[in-house]
Amino acid sequence: MTRERSGPPGSGLDLHLDWSGRPDSHALAEALRAAIRDGRLAAGSRVPSTRALAHDLGVARGTVTRAYAQLGTEGFLLSRQGAPTTVADRLRSGERADPPAPRPEPRSPRWDFRPGRPNLSAFPRKDWLAASRRVLRSMPADDLDYGDPQGPPALREALAEYLRRARAVHTSPERLIVCNGYSEALSLISRALRANGVRSVDFEDPSLPHFRTIVEDDGMRVHGIPVDDDGIDVGALRSPAAVVTPAHQFPLGVTMRAQRRAALIRSAKTEGRIIVEDDYDGEFRFDRKPVGSLQGMAPEAVIYAGTASKTLAPALRIAWLALPARLVEPVRAMRTHGRYGPVFDQLALAELLRSGAYDQHVRRSRAAYRQRREQLLRGLDGLRSRHRRYPAGISAGLHLTLRLDPDGPDEREVLARARSRGVALETLGPWWVNPGDHPPGVVIGYAAPAEHAFRPALAALLDTLDP
Amino acid sequence: MTRERSGPPGSGLDLHLDWSGRPDSHALAEALRAAIRDGRLAAGSRVPSTRALAHDLGVARGTVTRAYAQLGTEGFLLSRQGAPTTVADRLRSGERADPPAPRPEPRSPRWDFRPGRPNLSAFPRKDWLAASRRVLRSMPADDLDYGDPQGPPALREALAEYLRRARAVHTSPERLIVCNGYSEALSLISRALRANGVRSVDFEDPSLPHFRTIVEDDGMRVHGIPVDDDGIDVGALRSPAAVVTPAHQFPLGVTMRAQRRAALIRSAKTEGRIIVEDDYDGEFRFDRKPVGSLQGMAPEAVIYAGTASKTLAPALRIAWLALPARLVEPVRAMRTHGRYGPVFDQLALAELLRSGAYDQHVRRSRAAYRQRREQLLRGLDGLRSRHRRYPAGISAGLHLTLRLDPDGPDEREVLARARSRGVALETLGPWWVNPGDHPPGVVIGYAAPAEHAFRPALAALLDTLDP
Repeated sequence: MTRERSGPPGSGLDLHLDWSGRPDSHALAEALRAAIRDGRLAAGSRVPSTRALAHDLGVARGTVTRAYAQLGTEGFLLSRQGAPTTVADRLRSGERADPPAPRPEPRSPRWDFRPGRPNLSAFPRKDWLAASRRVLRSMPADDLDYGDPQGPPALREALAEYLRRARAVHTSPERLIVCNGYSEALSLISRALRANGVRSVDFEDPSLPHFRTIVEDDGMRVHGIPVDDDGIDVGALRSPAAVVTPAHQFPLGVTMRAQRRAALIRSAKTEGRIIVEDDYDGEFRFDRKPVGSLQGMAPEAVIYAGTASKTLAPALRIAWLALPARLVEPVRAMRTHGRYGPVFDQLALAELLRSGAYDQHVRRSRAAYRQRREQLLRGLDGLRSRHRRYPAGISAGLHLTLRLDPDGPDEREVLARARSRGVALETLGPWWVNPGDHPPGVVIGYAAPAEHAFRPALAALLDTLDP
Repeated sequence: MTRERSGPPGSGLDLHLDWSGRPDSHALAEALRAAIRDGRLAAGSRVPSTRALAHDLGVARGTVTRAYAQLGTEGFLLSRQGAPTTVADRLRSGERADPPAPRPEPRSPRWDFRPGRPNLSAFPRKDWLAASRRVLRSMPADDLDYGDPQGPPALREALAEYLRRARAVHTSPERLIVCNGYSEALSLISRALRANGVRSVDFEDPSLPHFRTIVEDDGMRVHGIPVDDDGIDVGALRSPAAVVTPAHQFPLGVTMRAQRRAALIRSAKTEGRIIVEDDYDGEFRFDRKPVGSLQGMAPEAVIYAGTASKTLAPALRIAWLALPARLVEPVRAMRTHGRYGPVFDQLALAELLRSGAYDQHVRRSRAAYRQRREQLLRGLDGLRSRHRRYPAGISAGLHLTLRLDPDGPDEREVLARARSRGVALETLGPWWVNPGDHPPGVVIGYAAPAEHAFRPALAALLDTLDP
């Protein structure tokens, strides 16, 4: 209930009080502040006597007295013994609010094929709520204090067990750092490397531009290293650190072959190179058991990075690093600014890992995404356009990358056509590091649409790709 | 159920399989990986034939075949057509794990008087769970995606309303940025200022060393500006930005007087200085209504910072900035690395703010902390030692700062005595910015002990202070 009241002519004051049913000194003080800020109560001008204003507004005089006293303490009003109360003239200089900052328009595309997004409508809300209930009922009060900069021990214990079991990661709770998403994880690594004299980092070419920006923002150079059907070209590495996606190259979709993995590890050992293994979707292999992590081959040369963004939801902002022992302290030291995440969600994830609900959700998602991938491939096979898949792309993950038909529309045209149909996807152009005559391509994430929306979404996508 | 099995002499292999009741290819692969890493399976050596190992272990041959294939893909084993399978010799170089990184010892003091901590055992768990339930039942799936870098609109709307009502902050959802605690908030401000050419920041002297470090880590100088009974010495300000605690100076406890507040605003306007108002405990005034925020006097000159760390719990890692319009974009731009927090807790807090449960918890806490402060003051009055309170310290907040009796033990001795009694408090020494002949002092946070523990905790504290 909102009432507007204007001060009658007697008080000389147009208050436009927005009282929300609480005619108290607090509401009056706020209205007076607003009037002073807006210039309706000019600097240096007298305010009405408490008696007059109370009468005009139909409130108790004490209400006005308290409001004036409050504003006096805050410096809006000046009252001196024996003199009338006036508006403080320090505030004169037009303290009007600027126009409000533009508000970002949150806009979900109608048909969402952006890579890197799981099906959010399948988020296991019930499991999460049950886990939250257990956490809130059983966590010690001390866990509500400023936390361990590596993340709660309970989560790190559950993660160490899970990573060993599901991804052949060789680690322990002491070597894990829980981060606010892979972006923060990479930023911590980047700053730790820089503090140790590293000045450039190798990335796969192509790779996600956003991650390269994080490293560049720390003042380091990024080199793009070509990727072929077997993975990154190890012989072309040139920096003291390299970020790779061995299980399922992002975005080309190839998996790093055994010989290449061994060569990469060897280069790490002989040249003292740090390898960052971005295992963003390692859980989602459809044709066979997932290949174990690179880190499992050389736990002291590889930093393993995993995330809950693809298995559960990006909004959780939970990722993890399994670090070589010598890097735990340097990376942890970069977290001094208290950026470690809230404990409830981290403990809820620990519950899900322990109870098996996490594995179950991953299994369900894997089956669903495999079906989607098959439907998508069948759909692509039926097109007149001669888009080709990158040949070595394995049956895995949440996305697919296509080389566009060389005789068809280019990336810009495909993107425009997609927009006009409400289809969101990405073109490969911005993903390349090195300039060159790269064939045009699109990156299609097929996990994002809700289950009921996948069929019409697919139809819209195929229509976009087949002009 | 864990069984250990050793391969019999026939296979030449001591596997020490840790199977956890799952005698499958996965467990076998993990055991083989461990054996290779530990050097039990030497590089270049042949592994047993699948038939021999299957027989030795009493498992199906397919189990061994799958395990070998998996390790082949991962680069642990090399198999060539017609040749025996061997351990890849790339891994030779003693890939043994370093000793594990030292694990931090989480240790709560027995009697916790560290400043800046609320009573965590009073955290409103039921309200929080109810809010989480509502959030999980009603939030749109889109909210689980990568979020708005300013924080979820629902929380910013609830906060804008709360801040106006409770702290006389003049803001709107578009001007708010939700941060992972005040540390991140200050770090964002610091980097935004630095990007705009600011090279030094004024802090109150004394003030919390941790926050000064954040600014110094960004490569800026910190100047300490003296604080007297009326607040910071505005005439001594010298940097383009100043961080202040006007409602309740941290740690001295004085409140900034009206004339001083006006002078500070004037200096901001005439000298183009940015004021950062750290309103860390503005909700907790005991003797009267809280003084409104400084920001309310000059929303375009003051950055307002608030936090849930004192009203609810530090582990939430939720703080907020109300920014002048022209600073929204520069500060927001510093969040490119995705450090914004998880959405569930942020939406749960929005629920608490909307439902009134937050206000109710603050009211309950305020009453409890006021009682504690009175008990503490009575206890201090009864001491033989002549410790004195800083004279202008107001009746507010979660802490109290004492000048130690000049004839008694110094800070170091008090700290040692406290430790020996299981009492945690802080000494004032590290809080000073400028060197000088500062009187010794202690900072006592009286909010942290659980309700049932406050009386014995107080006794231990008083005993510490009265040798």
